[in-house]
Amino acid sequence: MPTISNVPFDQLQIGQTSEYAKTVTEQDIQLFAVLSGDANPVHLDPDFAANTQFGERIAHGMLTGAVISAAIAMQMPGPGTIYLGQTLAFKRPVKIGDTVTVTLTVAEKHATKPRATLDCVVTNQNGQVVVEGQANVMVPTESQTVEVPTLPSVSLQR
Amino acid sequence: MPTISNVPFDQLQIGQTSEYAKTVTEQDIQLFAVLSGDANPVHLDPDFAANTQFGERIAHGMLTGAVISAAIAMQMPGPGTIYLGQTLAFKRPVKIGDTVTVTLTVAEKHATKPRATLDCVVTNQNGQVVVEGQANVMVPTESQTVEVPTLPSVSLQR
Repeated sequence: MPTISNVPFDQLQIGQTSEYAKTVTEQDIQLFAVLSGDANPVHLDPDFAANTQFGERIAHGMLTGAVISAAIAMQMPGPGTIYLGQTLAFKRPVKIGDTVTVTLTVAEKHATKPRATLDCVVTNQNGQVVVEGQANVMVPTESQTVEVPTLPSVSLQR
Repeated sequence: MPTISNVPFDQLQIGQTSEYAKTVTEQDIQLFAVLSGDANPVHLDPDFAANTQFGERIAHGMLTGAVISAAIAMQMPGPGTIYLGQTLAFKRPVKIGDTVTVTLTVAEKHATKPRATLDCVVTNQNGQVVVEGQANVMVPTESQTVEVPTLPSVSLQR
């Protein structure tokens, strides 16, 4: 089973960065609709979306928020991190097939508590910022390596 | 096909509220892991989670963010809303089987642009706040009723 390791508080450096990329698929958008309940046709109906200002289906904005949360949880600080807060500014739509890259940068470390603020910038394959914000996290104080469970394969039926 | 209607800017009132509830299932957590890539064992592995401070598996924090986004998109202001920003403070874990209720309250309307700020409070079935924050949205200026596409049924295979 593959493993991931965290970056414990004493090793986390101001200015340290981590990148996490994901290509957004049609299935991702459908799964997001299923789990959230947001079935708006701008996300799901190509004909409807063609007549909106976007010209085609767009991903739910918070799907990119989900990718930011994965970057934090899987990479930096990684396993054992407790998510305290997140700000998000949605700047541009994400479309099916776009590859979004989350860049996390350690902006602040709390003087006395194992807490940190991470700047979060998400760009698309054209280098345009689609989402930006900040995360507040409680950082693990001890090194930890965990086994990553295998994800199920998903099939969708209409 | 079922339809949903929006609350256009001129009908949106300061203090107006909308509630949206969802019970978080094991499948939701697995789907969130698949679409985000966050496969941390605290969300997916019952044995691992039993030995954490939570004592059992917890939902990804941003899954509750996804439910907030659905409340905004499906109910108030509803279809045609453009999501500009969201703040989230994660207060308590959400566990499998918890029913989370998002309460949206119109906090501010922009004086000249069709923009609004919504207070977002998410409670669990025990009345405890699990997430709170604010959403900034561009509110549709015209009434709109849209057909809601049928969501696919999902099956998971290991």
